[in-house]
Amino acid sequence: MSVTAAKGFTAAGIAAGIKENGNPDLALVVNNGPRLAAAGVFTSNRVKAAPVLWSEQVLKGGLVSAVVLNSGGANACTGPQGFQDTHATAEKVAATLGLNAGEIAVASTGLIGVTLPMDKLLPGVDQAAAALSEHGGEKAAIAIKTTDSVHKTAVVQKDGWAVGGMAKGAGMLAPGLATMLVVLTTDADLDSAALDGALRAATRTTFDRVDSDGCMSTNDTVLLLASGASQVAPAHDEFAEAVRAVCDDLARQLIGDAEGASKDIRIEVINAASEDDAVEVGRSIARNNLLKCAIHGEDPNWGRVLSAIGTTAAAFDPNQLNVAINGVWVCKNGSVSEDRDLVDMRYREVRITADLAAGTTEPVVIWANDLTADYVHENSAYSS
Amino acid sequence: MSVTAAKGFTAAGIAAGIKENGNPDLALVVNNGPRLAAAGVFTSNRVKAAPVLWSEQVLKGGLVSAVVLNSGGANACTGPQGFQDTHATAEKVAATLGLNAGEIAVASTGLIGVTLPMDKLLPGVDQAAAALSEHGGEKAAIAIKTTDSVHKTAVVQKDGWAVGGMAKGAGMLAPGLATMLVVLTTDADLDSAALDGALRAATRTTFDRVDSDGCMSTNDTVLLLASGASQVAPAHDEFAEAVRAVCDDLARQLIGDAEGASKDIRIEVINAASEDDAVEVGRSIARNNLLKCAIHGEDPNWGRVLSAIGTTAAAFDPNQLNVAINGVWVCKNGSVSEDRDLVDMRYREVRITADLAAGTTEPVVIWANDLTADYVHENSAYSS
Repeated sequence: MSVTAAKGFTAAGIAAGIKENGNPDLALVVNNGPRLAAAGVFTSNRVKAAPVLWSEQVLKGGLVSAVVLNSGGANACTGPQGFQDTHATAEKVAATLGLNAGEIAVASTGLIGVTLPMDKLLPGVDQAAAALSEHGGEKAAIAIKTTDSVHKTAVVQKDGWAVGGMAKGAGMLAPGLATMLVVLTTDADLDSAALDGALRAATRTTFDRVDSDGCMSTNDTVLLLASGASQVAPAHDEFAEAVRAVCDDLARQLIGDAEGASKDIRIEVINAASEDDAVEVGRSIARNNLLKCAIHGEDPNWGRVLSAIGTTAAAFDPNQLNVAINGVWVCKNGSVSEDRDLVDMRYREVRITADLAAGTTEPVVIWANDLTADYVHENSAYSS
Repeated sequence: MSVTAAKGFTAAGIAAGIKENGNPDLALVVNNGPRLAAAGVFTSNRVKAAPVLWSEQVLKGGLVSAVVLNSGGANACTGPQGFQDTHATAEKVAATLGLNAGEIAVASTGLIGVTLPMDKLLPGVDQAAAALSEHGGEKAAIAIKTTDSVHKTAVVQKDGWAVGGMAKGAGMLAPGLATMLVVLTTDADLDSAALDGALRAATRTTFDRVDSDGCMSTNDTVLLLASGASQVAPAHDEFAEAVRAVCDDLARQLIGDAEGASKDIRIEVINAASEDDAVEVGRSIARNNLLKCAIHGEDPNWGRVLSAIGTTAAAFDPNQLNVAINGVWVCKNGSVSEDRDLVDMRYREVRITADLAAGTTEPVVIWANDLTADYVHENSAYSS
């Protein structure tokens, strides 16, 4: 279903030969209207890939008729040539489909610092255009995979309208705004301002709270396209919740497929003085390599949680901190409490609760992964 | 030589039984004067171990007659009992040696969240006191090891006076002020204010610029003790440089012995707009797990360097960044430059130069390690 779950969209995913192994590497998502409304959020990394620089400009117009995505190369740190290649890709899609190049978003993923093989990519656009279908969402999701072991899609069906999406991402997952390629579509009849509000609210509490390895990508792109084909204009809150649910589902899938990971770590920060404090503490815990190793070893090493909290500027008293791992309060008032041997860590999901005892802020959840030898192996050899 | 290289000091290292494996675990360093001047810097982690809280108070007086250090337990996150145990340790040393407990610094290292076996530690103080010797520096350095594969000492001999020291540290190495236990001694005839100035200046550009794994300890302690026994009062600059040289030597030894590491990474940031910018950029590169994996795999993946720089707030233009790895400028003006295959990464030391092209600040060097499967193995099983 993916990006073609909502009415008014066609998609395709094909192998253009950008990847040397012959796997699918080019996806096309087309909004057939009647609306062409769109919103987008992009990496906050200041080193931005050429397609991000291009698509940021496109999105300023609030109209996107098509998105062309490639895996097999990030087109980041590729200088003026890289930007010309992105531009040429958009022009090619425009010429092939009879669209305006200024309304075509481009997204790329793969190795940084390598230019794209345009002699393969441009003919691939013809191939993808010929394959466009209302059932093409699955293939598009497959074509944007890099080190992903599975493709990732999600759909929320509502009364007469839907929000669907696809995502890729398995490493370099630590959002500045988002840390992966995501295309969401809806047939709701909404303008780009409504989409933008819903998308920013959704990413703030979903993709922005995923932190697999602390490394922010140069290519993060999350797009939301609306076709209006349902002729239904849902209420703001209902639409925003549907977008949030799809983002949350995809974000959870990203963590579940993180490179080399054996555990998904759900870090919940409670009783913080502010939401910012809670996010800072959650992220500090999420990025602590020693804790990530301990979780991998199924060692409920709460000392490393406290050590991570202690590096933040959040409001708390070290003597009032409480920590639970999988529901067992191993640390109370900053010191030893329940027996750590009671913690059962055999399952993939590990829940850490950090109680700052400093306020009444709503709980904040950050998702992370453990650190494994497989992560090291995969990322010491990655070059495609 | 270690802490007994300077005149006026005795030291000992013995096995008190704190470690279950019977290895040495208790060290004593005594300043026999005539001066008892001292300075110290401690972790900036807000979760501080009991011995840090104690020793911070002791150092406020500027006088330290003895330092007692134990491995086998960090006495961190141990609540009021932990602080009582530290106090009792200082009192025991005071009673045994006829000193003032308020002038005895205490340092501990090992697992967080476990109280110390005082029934073994206190008799160990008697044993250590009996073993005190002008040749005890080496044994003291051995007794403070945890996961360290070697003990670490350094000495600078000057004209009539000396600065010597010992350090322990192999993981949780990312200084807020320092990230390990270090005791430096000198027989220079200087007061605590002079020591403090030299020590803070030295740690700022040595221990503070070591970042093995991004994890800041709860127990970091760096002490500098002066006996005055040489009856020489060196000039400020000469003394400061000697302290800096010993700190630099020990810091380099810490990186060289980091848990599981196969590479020592020297990150030099040049042409930054400010020293703060340079440190921020160097630290961001040092903490990038994907880059650390690439270095482990001997992959000159400069895209990950740019990606790390891009997450900072430092002044730079992405299109003017230059990066060299082992002297080969693989990235110029933010894009592909010299052939990455020219980079020879077979040796343990890897040099990354990041040219921000944003100013004329003196180069700043941060030391880091690669990320390896051995690091994961060691830290997923660590419990002693």
